[in-house]
Amino acid sequence: MKQIVVAALPRGPLGAEHFRLEEVPAPVPGPGQVHLRVILMSIDAANRSWLQGATYRAAVQAGDVMPTYAICEVIDSRADGLAPGDIVAAEAGWCEELCLPAGDVQKMPDLRPLSHLLSVYGIAGKTAWHGLVGVGRLVAGETVLVSAAAGSVGGYVGQIARAMGCRAVGIAGGPEKCRWVVEELGFDACLDYRDPGFAKALRAACPDGVDVYFDNVGGRVLETALFLMNLRGRVVCCGAISQYDGEAPSGPRNLPGLVVVKRLRMEGFIVMDHAADDPKALRDLTRWVDDGRIKVVEDIAEGLDQAPAALIGLLAGDNRGKRMVRLAPDPA
Amino acid sequence: MKQIVVAALPRGPLGAEHFRLEEVPAPVPGPGQVHLRVILMSIDAANRSWLQGATYRAAVQAGDVMPTYAICEVIDSRADGLAPGDIVAAEAGWCEELCLPAGDVQKMPDLRPLSHLLSVYGIAGKTAWHGLVGVGRLVAGETVLVSAAAGSVGGYVGQIARAMGCRAVGIAGGPEKCRWVVEELGFDACLDYRDPGFAKALRAACPDGVDVYFDNVGGRVLETALFLMNLRGRVVCCGAISQYDGEAPSGPRNLPGLVVVKRLRMEGFIVMDHAADDPKALRDLTRWVDDGRIKVVEDIAEGLDQAPAALIGLLAGDNRGKRMVRLAPDPA
Repeated sequence: MKQIVVAALPRGPLGAEHFRLEEVPAPVPGPGQVHLRVILMSIDAANRSWLQGATYRAAVQAGDVMPTYAICEVIDSRADGLAPGDIVAAEAGWCEELCLPAGDVQKMPDLRPLSHLLSVYGIAGKTAWHGLVGVGRLVAGETVLVSAAAGSVGGYVGQIARAMGCRAVGIAGGPEKCRWVVEELGFDACLDYRDPGFAKALRAACPDGVDVYFDNVGGRVLETALFLMNLRGRVVCCGAISQYDGEAPSGPRNLPGLVVVKRLRMEGFIVMDHAADDPKALRDLTRWVDDGRIKVVEDIAEGLDQAPAALIGLLAGDNRGKRMVRLAPDPA
Repeated sequence: MKQIVVAALPRGPLGAEHFRLEEVPAPVPGPGQVHLRVILMSIDAANRSWLQGATYRAAVQAGDVMPTYAICEVIDSRADGLAPGDIVAAEAGWCEELCLPAGDVQKMPDLRPLSHLLSVYGIAGKTAWHGLVGVGRLVAGETVLVSAAAGSVGGYVGQIARAMGCRAVGIAGGPEKCRWVVEELGFDACLDYRDPGFAKALRAACPDGVDVYFDNVGGRVLETALFLMNLRGRVVCCGAISQYDGEAPSGPRNLPGLVVVKRLRMEGFIVMDHAADDPKALRDLTRWVDDGRIKVVEDIAEGLDQAPAALIGLLAGDNRGKRMVRLAPDPA
């Protein structure tokens, strides 16, 4: 079977040279293990941060199979409670097959397309909901600003904000993407952070200031957003994609000054922390998908060998909606 | 009477040249006003930030009397409910006398020395208590780290932490000050941020990591502290003295990355926001002063003309405990 390992840890921007495709024997399950076929791999900015050092998981080392969150089908089981044909989610790797202890996989509901388990009903949609509701304590009528608005999480943040009766303002890279965020996803406005007039345009798009800033990027965009925060505003810290793919991170120069003056709350979270509230999140998301208030946007590359390019491109912002790589078709 | 005005707004470090002493006629109270004699002026790092622009109050302009929080005696009253001899707190100015609407002053309890109304029972002590308890949600057994530990607020933060059964680690400038923080204020440890081995020494002093970092300084010290935070730690954002007195602020380069990874909460506050809980704060502080667990340290300069030097020196870190300027003795 095929797998992709990290050939060398990047010291600057991630490139194809940091990965190597290998052909290895298929794994054999031991007692208590399940044998999995990978169907869909989630491609996330966080993957890049794993190459920088320990985060909420151990650092990835050169020579490791590149890890990934994935949707898999059980093809053989030596564990109770799991049988061939079951669909599970797991921390897998960039590989066609793997064996894991049954306790390390999570049985998934039987829904199609399986891609929805990674997008709206998966990491992306749940991260958006938990960040806005659980961390940001969003209230109807407030203004929500979100960066990486055309990305997997950001697109749901704005759509959820609108569904909850809030004003949704996005930030994205390039005029075309911004137009798409407004026209396709229904945001009230979307501003291009590469535009020289960005800060001024953003202020104009938020006439009542910003109550919740959902930050996916950190850096200069966070710095700009902080100036627009209302008193007692909340900064939901979800990611810092601007800081992952280089050597010299830059901190927002108005931190912590504005946090004090405006009594802001900045709070970081990881979607898994809020698993107890997943049923609430899924109830809302299902309702809003069904009634058309949330559009599911997915960006799926085909084939294991496309994974490096999919991640490298994601870091450059070339995706729209949740990016994933498909290795096998959905079982019927 | 004498007053000190802001001669010019500083564009770099604050100096004596930014102030001018003036002799002006004594003010005369109008209807509904009280005529006040200033007894003690509070000298705070925040005073410097007021010269940078609008904060939680309007910006100070060149030509304005330098504002200050002060303890005053009523010497004449044209308002109901206030009589000569009453002690009040107010936003006054660097001046010997002033007249204010009665609604703009707060009657103070009758205790001596009056300086305690600015130190342990005033802004300094209450800021420390509200920050640790209200914002930081401190729990017995945790580790508290505080910067500007020899300063007005920082000294109380560590002492309150100890009184609540926590480990208290301070950060201050210079070995002598650090020694004083440990020996006089009873901190478990205090590290010198100017020491080249600072980051390593700080880590060694916090073997169980940091649960609450009470940040008075921002900048590089905040950046260093963030690396030591425990999962779900709280950063209590009280001030950013390192950023007030220069032209080029620098942001912590690990923000917001570490906030996400460690699920930190950074939250800003101003002591006045928590006035509803002042009775609880004062009950604890009184008890701990009375039983000797809190030492009251005050740093009092004499005479209005000493105010500029007192503020300039504070920004350079030459104070120990709550700095104030006395203009008149406590009334009997």
